[in-house]
Amino acid sequence: MLVQKKFFKIREFLLVCGEVLKDLEIAYETYGTLNKEKSNAILVCHALTGDSHLALRYKPEDRKAGWWDQFVGNKKSIDLEQYFVICSNILGGCAGSTGPASIKPESKEPYALDFPFITIKDMVRAQAALVTSLGIRKLFACVGASMGGMQVLEWAVSFPERVQKFIVIASALYQSPQNIALHEVGRRAIMNDPRWKYGNYDRQKAPTDGLSIARMIAHISYLSDQTMHQKFGRKIKGKESLNFELYNEFEVESYLNYQGYSFIQRFDANSYLYITRAVDYFDYSEGKLSQILQKKKFSEESQFLVVSFSSDWLYPPYQVREIVSSLQYHNLAVSYSQIVSNYGHDAFLLETEALGSLIKDFL
Amino acid sequence: MLVQKKFFKIREFLLVCGEVLKDLEIAYETYGTLNKEKSNAILVCHALTGDSHLALRYKPEDRKAGWWDQFVGNKKSIDLEQYFVICSNILGGCAGSTGPASIKPESKEPYALDFPFITIKDMVRAQAALVTSLGIRKLFACVGASMGGMQVLEWAVSFPERVQKFIVIASALYQSPQNIALHEVGRRAIMNDPRWKYGNYDRQKAPTDGLSIARMIAHISYLSDQTMHQKFGRKIKGKESLNFELYNEFEVESYLNYQGYSFIQRFDANSYLYITRAVDYFDYSEGKLSQILQKKKFSEESQFLVVSFSSDWLYPPYQVREIVSSLQYHNLAVSYSQIVSNYGHDAFLLETEALGSLIKDFL
Repeated sequence: MLVQKKFFKIREFLLVCGEVLKDLEIAYETYGTLNKEKSNAILVCHALTGDSHLALRYKPEDRKAGWWDQFVGNKKSIDLEQYFVICSNILGGCAGSTGPASIKPESKEPYALDFPFITIKDMVRAQAALVTSLGIRKLFACVGASMGGMQVLEWAVSFPERVQKFIVIASALYQSPQNIALHEVGRRAIMNDPRWKYGNYDRQKAPTDGLSIARMIAHISYLSDQTMHQKFGRKIKGKESLNFELYNEFEVESYLNYQGYSFIQRFDANSYLYITRAVDYFDYSEGKLSQILQKKKFSEESQFLVVSFSSDWLYPPYQVREIVSSLQYHNLAVSYSQIVSNYGHDAFLLETEALGSLIKDFL
Repeated sequence: MLVQKKFFKIREFLLVCGEVLKDLEIAYETYGTLNKEKSNAILVCHALTGDSHLALRYKPEDRKAGWWDQFVGNKKSIDLEQYFVICSNILGGCAGSTGPASIKPESKEPYALDFPFITIKDMVRAQAALVTSLGIRKLFACVGASMGGMQVLEWAVSFPERVQKFIVIASALYQSPQNIALHEVGRRAIMNDPRWKYGNYDRQKAPTDGLSIARMIAHISYLSDQTMHQKFGRKIKGKESLNFELYNEFEVESYLNYQGYSFIQRFDANSYLYITRAVDYFDYSEGKLSQILQKKKFSEESQFLVVSFSSDWLYPPYQVREIVSSLQYHNLAVSYSQIVSNYGHDAFLLETEALGSLIKDFL
């Protein structure tokens, strides 16, 4: 079974910041078959640097399948024999959807910093337009981890009646100041890179050094202290005793550098700036979610599943539980599970069995 | 009461890495009066980016006193009416002691990357030579937090009979892979800065962008999630609603940028590379400390005080407790306290009362 990337176009799109984007494209993929009643659709929202390639392969020879292939497929937790699954690249992304690297219709040049600021709400409104265009009024489920989980919460706010089952994994009601700080260091690394040129870089001479630094910092926050101990410990690269080297002395260093430099092959630096900002702006803290949901109408069968991972320090369990409290405040049906895992935030990609069976049972 | 910086010279100094440094200088300061028996001397070892300016002022008009002035002074936890206190800038530093920015005698140029790799053991051996030169055979106490605590542990290994009371605060037996990773991102930021030039930068055109990124990352690790919530929350700079800005939208961002850019005024980038490496190399993990101490002779009255802070995630309490277990293994007299604090790693500078009274009582 193979999949292909498709594109959905929007002529004009009013953003939260007040600006209008024209001739917007949203890249998306669909998996499985939509039933006659159009009642078996599941939207999966990707995280910060994800894309529409959720599962399966484009070509049989592709080395890697989509980023959540372990969870989505025939007989898997999200069973493609049963569900029709949609995944789209977020607005502002760089994997097919319109973002800062796209050509601005008016100037025929890349938007770069002319790209308007986007928010999670904008991403979700673009997804909703896509879902509507597929003839689907109501999603059977909306699923997301990390920034994807923020999108699911935004679906609950913006389109409460259009989703039956909400699944929010390793996410938060708001970006914490520590996480804003981590984003800021990454952004500074990009913007300090002389090749960045206030966003007006050539694609061939992109600020890759800065972007790789940003990825390295982010990657540390995706792992946990424990998993780093298990995976690398203090292993020295290549030998037993110290090399006395500034570069790549320890295995953890060369792993991190590899992560940084493989990321720049697939990601646009300006897109990274805009998307991290969108996450920083996400804020349903201090009772805001409860207040807003009070005015919203959910359908009778609405249900929430909220999941945290014990060693996640990017969106730690205490923040995930704040989501639960905000939802329970309205007597919404909420199940909460904390999965004991050493994988840190990355557990949403790695805890296939524990997370997979929670999702399967909930669906 | 004022203080002045002094210099101690070493003609030749053999390093752990096998190289020899010539005409070494160690900058140091002393406070209080050494008694006739020379039995009241306390050595304080500074952390990563500290210096010899532990307490008091150089000139009455100085805006700031030394970095631990709140703990060291007349009637303070380390009472200058009672003790003679020494603090020296570490070997490899850039606040008076010989480091990569110093002039290499052979070439009359700065060492830059010709500077040999240094270790915590080298720093401590230089301190021991300084202490000897002051006519002191045995220290009444040796105190240090963070990398300073590693130096105290190294004193226990290298000169167990020369210290009566050891105080190790917010430190570890080894640098964890997560901390090596954090250092690595900072080093990469420096080495990616085009002004770094493989270490051969002009003092006037130093890789300040890279160094400030390194400081920003480090600074995040010195604070805690809690303290960031309390200190900044999600406050937007200057106003109530979003500015839609890439730069300094949130207060936590401008704070962090300020930290980065004030650091570059006082620190040398190459020195940062060498010192972080020295910390990465520190390793008494997996029973190594216990094994080594077995062969060492402590005096009858040897005592250890080990302190952790509940919200410290750079050297978290579990790592500090590993120090305690390693010491207890030898039936050494060890007191351990965990101070409940929201300040994260920086608590060693801020928990004046709780930490101060522990130190005072122990001395």
